[in-house]
Amino acid sequence: MLDAALATWPEVKDFVREGRIGLLPVGAQEQHGPHLPLATDTVMATGFARRLAEALDALLLPALPYGDAWNNEGFPGTLSLSPETVQRTVEDLARGVRRIGLGALIVVNGHFGNREPIALAARELWRESGFPVLCLDYPGLESLADEICASAPAAPTFYHADEVETSVMLALAPEAVRMERAISEYPVFPPTFGAEPMQLSSFCQSGVFGNSRPATAEKGERLLEGLTAASVDVIRTFLARHGLVRAKNSEEKPS
Amino acid sequence: MLDAALATWPEVKDFVREGRIGLLPVGAQEQHGPHLPLATDTVMATGFARRLAEALDALLLPALPYGDAWNNEGFPGTLSLSPETVQRTVEDLARGVRRIGLGALIVVNGHFGNREPIALAARELWRESGFPVLCLDYPGLESLADEICASAPAAPTFYHADEVETSVMLALAPEAVRMERAISEYPVFPPTFGAEPMQLSSFCQSGVFGNSRPATAEKGERLLEGLTAASVDVIRTFLARHGLVRAKNSEEKPS
Amino acid sequence: MLDAALATWPEVKDFVREGRIGLLPVGAQEQHGPHLPLATDTVMATGFARRLAEALDALLLPALPYGDAWNNEGFPGTLSLSPETVQRTVEDLARGVRRIGLGALIVVNGHFGNREPIALAARELWRESGFPVLCLDYPGLESLADEICASAPAAPTFYHADEVETSVMLALAPEAVRMERAISEYPVFPPTFGAEPMQLSSFCQSGVFGNSRPATAEKGERLLEGLTAASVDVIRTFLARHGLVRAKNSEEKPS
Amino acid sequence: MLDAALATWPEVKDFVREGRIGLLPVGAQEQHGPHLPLATDTVMATGFARRLAEALDALLLPALPYGDAWNNEGFPGTLSLSPETVQRTVEDLARGVRRIGLGALIVVNGHFGNREPIALAARELWRESGFPVLCLDYPGLESLADEICASAPAAPTFYHADEVETSVMLALAPEAVRMERAISEYPVFPPTFGAEPMQLSSFCQSGVFGNSRPATAEKGERLLEGLTAASVDVIRTFLARHGLVRAKNSEEKPS
Amino acid sequence: MLDAALATWPEVKDFVREGRIGLLPVGAQEQHGPHLPLATDTVMATGFARRLAEALDALLLPALPYGDAWNNEGFPGTLSLSPETVQRTVEDLARGVRRIGLGALIVVNGHFGNREPIALAARELWRESGFPVLCLDYPGLESLADEICASAPAAPTFYHADEVETSVMLALAPEAVRMERAISEYPVFPPTFGAEPMQLSSFCQSGVFGNSRPATAEKGERLLEGLTAASVDVIRTFLARHGLVRAKNSEEKPS
Amino acid sequence: MLDAALATWPEVKDFVREGRIGLLPVGAQEQHGPHLPLATDTVMATGFARRLAEALDALLLPALPYGDAWNNEGFPGTLSLSPETVQRTVEDLARGVRRIGLGALIVVNGHFGNREPIALAARELWRESGFPVLCLDYPGLESLADEICASAPAAPTFYHADEVETSVMLALAPEAVRMERAISEYPVFPPTFGAEPMQLSSFCQSGVFGNSRPATAEKGERLLEGLTAASVDVIRTFLARHGLVRAKNSEEKPS
Repeated sequence: MLDAALATWPEVKDFVREGRIGLLPVGAQEQHGPHLPLATDTVMATGFARRLAEALDALLLPALPYGDAWNNEGFPGTLSLSPETVQRTVEDLARGVRRIGLGALIVVNGHFGNREPIALAARELWRESGFPVLCLDYPGLESLADEICASAPAAPTFYHADEVETSVMLALAPEAVRMERAISEYPVFPPTFGAEPMQLSSFCQSGVFGNSRPATAEKGERLLEGLTAASVDVIRTFLARHGLVRAKNSEEKPS
Repeated sequence: MLDAALATWPEVKDFVREGRIGLLPVGAQEQHGPHLPLATDTVMATGFARRLAEALDALLLPALPYGDAWNNEGFPGTLSLSPETVQRTVEDLARGVRRIGLGALIVVNGHFGNREPIALAARELWRESGFPVLCLDYPGLESLADEICASAPAAPTFYHADEVETSVMLALAPEAVRMERAISEYPVFPPTFGAEPMQLSSFCQSGVFGNSRPATAEKGERLLEGLTAASVDVIRTFLARHGLVRAKNSEEKPS
Repeated sequence: MLDAALATWPEVKDFVREGRIGLLPVGAQEQHGPHLPLATDTVMATGFARRLAEALDALLLPALPYGDAWNNEGFPGTLSLSPETVQRTVEDLARGVRRIGLGALIVVNGHFGNREPIALAARELWRESGFPVLCLDYPGLESLADEICASAPAAPTFYHADEVETSVMLALAPEAVRMERAISEYPVFPPTFGAEPMQLSSFCQSGVFGNSRPATAEKGERLLEGLTAASVDVIRTFLARHGLVRAKNSEEKPS
Repeated sequence: MLDAALATWPEVKDFVREGRIGLLPVGAQEQHGPHLPLATDTVMATGFARRLAEALDALLLPALPYGDAWNNEGFPGTLSLSPETVQRTVEDLARGVRRIGLGALIVVNGHFGNREPIALAARELWRESGFPVLCLDYPGLESLADEICASAPAAPTFYHADEVETSVMLALAPEAVRMERAISEYPVFPPTFGAEPMQLSSFCQSGVFGNSRPATAEKGERLLEGLTAASVDVIRTFLARHGLVRAKNSEEKPS
Repeated sequence: MLDAALATWPEVKDFVREGRIGLLPVGAQEQHGPHLPLATDTVMATGFARRLAEALDALLLPALPYGDAWNNEGFPGTLSLSPETVQRTVEDLARGVRRIGLGALIVVNGHFGNREPIALAARELWRESGFPVLCLDYPGLESLADEICASAPAAPTFYHADEVETSVMLALAPEAVRMERAISEYPVFPPTFGAEPMQLSSFCQSGVFGNSRPATAEKGERLLEGLTAASVDVIRTFLARHGLVRAKNSEEKPS
Repeated sequence: MLDAALATWPEVKDFVREGRIGLLPVGAQEQHGPHLPLATDTVMATGFARRLAEALDALLLPALPYGDAWNNEGFPGTLSLSPETVQRTVEDLARGVRRIGLGALIVVNGHFGNREPIALAARELWRESGFPVLCLDYPGLESLADEICASAPAAPTFYHADEVETSVMLALAPEAVRMERAISEYPVFPPTFGAEPMQLSSFCQSGVFGNSRPATAEKGERLLEGLTAASVDVIRTFLARHGLVRAKNSEEKPS
């Protein structure tokens, strides 16, 4: 893999060849309770993308540290891009990745609010040039969380500043986690949640959704390993769909 | 100062009070010759902004790692946002900084191509709400470079992957610099440079503009100190213009 | 309730008063297999919205017969609006509903692809004027389908031209259903479904997702009744959140 | 002809062949006095388009029930799209009609305010792909109205809720007309009408422009027949201009 | 009146007072046959606006020399703005006229294709601030042309490079007219003219619509006088509608 | 050269041939002190462009009389376009110049605020079609002013209503200059000038930046000659870069 931030241009030039792809982590500057940093989604997406880049020998792009975190603006420190800005940013970068000569872009998304803008960017690239863009949102996380974590999520598939995210952060950036402030809050979701614009701060006090206390670095490591395995499978399928599987794959598969 | 990426939301809540401001570093993913990383502008803007944040006790926001680097797209590895995307990003973030309750936003720009989009964002904020946004482009760099550096720039006020930038990188992130590949190139600028759209790669082979060899960390440190002093002055003037100077300032000035 | 298409302007004038709201059905022109009409989502959203309008004494607006049905364009007859056009349409109409003097807009959405554009329109209205917009996507459908229908959906919460939709169509517009052509197809979803832009026609031959054969009008009626009851609850909560519950509600609740 | 709303996708697939075209009725949700429904323009455009679809064996698309009715917003019940939204909607649908394989799109416009947005959409389609789009605004109506109707229009070529529109509505949807409330109003048009933005309600009390009382279904039928004949001629010319005339034409012309 | 192009800023400052208005001529760069210059519409709008500015003691703004002349692009020399650019230009200038403190903006339009963009700009200004904008399109021209000119127009209200325009040009800028090349052409308008996008060059060879030969400066002068009288009336009504009539008016009316 | 405003379309048709180019002057409606007219930048750009058109035998287009003069809006009489409107206008016209068959567009810019919008338009044209657009901003003015003028500019390369501009105006349009009101003002630029949005009127009283008194027509003539010579060189280089140099060039070069 090659870290595009630290690489020089001749190194990128040498790295690009048929079958090689780019990985773009997309995070957010968003509240994550009293014990996790505001950059949690960026840290997680970046750390996870790095593992994927290693597994796939890909070009790892600098992470976007902002996303559409509109519904957490009620908590100070959250800073949000409009969905249109997120979409345009991903479009611009995908066009650049295509221009450079990479075969596809994998967007490693660490924040729910970015999903739709990224999906629209992927659709636009497909429309204008057929360039393939895949958006990964921690595939397989639900079953992994069920298996590995002790506490229940605050709502189905809703993991925010809870045991899941805190564990992954303990595995990736333990120095940024204040476990002594880790708490548990199971807010009551209003019946219209998801059906109307709503600030999460209107029904959640701490910003924690679920129980962050049982989190451990070991659980985080297991989650990351499971997510990586699941994602590599999805990406391989994706590359095969678009005729981009590299020779290296066939070598690997026997192993 | 408070590092907004690593902070939690209650810490940001406590930090925000009258007179406090936000600092946003804006970089680029852009070729910087064979010896400097593609993230050079981001590294420099971030390191410089950190010093300013300390001097001003400000909220340091996560750096934007992409900018409008259109005219360096001829070198592989450069990835660029459209000027409109840069502008909208800064607008969105400035609105967020205002919403949070900070008194102003200082954009610490590390890349020439971002100047105009940031200026337009600042104008838009002024138009829609009067919120003050200042864009710093290394104020005073020309005279500092003249004083501190041994080599001449490739063109007046044009510092790219040369002694100036290499020195600052050696001061901020020496591990990212490969001085063994540092070279000198003084390209001949076409007469229409600046007057028509033009790829820098059409007249520069290495991506270095000037002589990067005489660079030292010590020069970089002196440049950073000079830039910091000049910038703090400009920012203080800016804050005074908008009635935002904090009491702490008067304490500091005597020292 | 008042049907806004057939009403005259003096009737609308008389109808508008405190607590009264508007209902906007949003459908699609989209393939629904060999036995259901292309307007299926519009017919369903309109029929369902009519029941809600009666239950809530609301103004029923003309249905939008087009939506974002991009991923069904592989089947002839599908006609799609861009997500931006759907969003702007809903924004324009919500502004009009607000201008007229109604207290809120309920968007009764009959097509998955419209969800995000409607949500963004609702957010924009909230941002610009605080006007409340609720988007209903058949709340409670999953458990109702589990309870009432014999066949399994092709994928969780994915109901398209199957027993669920065919039953509702048999209840609302039996003349438009050709049960003799009703078939069963359980396509294999590619692993990257939902993660990259993909035409449904690339893995589904008939356009039916699941088994449409066990559909009956009686099941459709039960589904509609269940959906209506669940929706009226959600809407009442929504109105209460925004201080819009009318006196009539308290009369109704005892019954 | 084929009604695209009620058709299934295999039926559309079979229907599309060389020379076949699509018809899109565009209406409005707009005040039409105390005796005609707010959907009058939609009802008229749809009924008229159906006759054209039959005469031309065309694909009849679902009608757009909203248009740019800005200058009637002073009357409650009018709901309006911005001209840009109307334009984008027609553009999106025309692109879809082209993609499906039809040879042209005929927009059957029932509302004056939609003219320019449809014209701009037609121009855009021509620019981007050369796809032919024709906008019909009741061609020949002026001379037909002169010939068939007893009352004068409120202004030249201005027919709104008057004898013309009421007659056509009596022919197409008599159950939606309350002739007992039909009145006559000849408002005085301000000298700046048409030269500055102006609400019609500022100089017209009832929303009727002219005399609706002499309206009869029989006059409406004659108007529709005349409009249909004139339109079929225009469409045939249009198709011939673009090399789209079908064999059927030559059969018909002798008759 | 004050000519804003030649005035200095202190003169504008002194000129602006209650009741004073601005006049903006809008022209086009468009073919006008072999005998009239491409700037004909600009010359006419400017000359006409100057007379109105004198009659109304208004601020005469510099003329826009480009407009939406799309359908004349088939003739070399025509240069066109998109309708959106025309609209935005007028919006920007109207906002400026309002900011300066003038009471209204009169757009003196010399080119048919600019009508709708100007009307939309006027509507936008009304929506955002209530600022009154009037668009004048040679009011009363039809009856004046009937009365003064010998030749018939090529189509009703269609005056292009014919006796009307040539006469006005002879009155305003005789040095720019080559009467020796003045010709007559009465092209046959296709039946779909006005209903589909169409280049005028597809059915007109010379660019002249009608007969330019009978044109004289004296007719042009009479046309201008008639247009000026009619326009001053319309503008006075407009100003009265918006409470902007100046004292001078009452003095004038008796006379 | 051919003046496109006064030419007829057949003349433009005859004029266009390989190697011929278009010249577009872009000015502004902007305060220029008590002695120069608001149209100063337009007058200067037009006069200068005319000389270039003669030297290059080019098509001279009508001048844009408005630009982005935002920071002079504090002085009455300044009217400004948004930067986006300027950009779109230049884009539209450049597309037209390309359509007509000219080989390139030279934008002769008379106003600093238009630089970036023109540069972005040039970039867009290059991106969409490769059409070459050059923006000239008085090349060589700094050294010419140093050489010819007696007074120093108010700031480096900042010439506004001073000896430079007043001299050029005296050479081009002496009747529009009131030398009796010519004054000298050397305002103190705030330290944040150029780094934040700022009205020039906040620190300059007269609108004159520098000393306008030593201006003479003779100096203006020398400046124009110097600028013309320098510009013709730049344009020749530009045309050569794009393979557009006409045969005439080789004839001229020997002389």
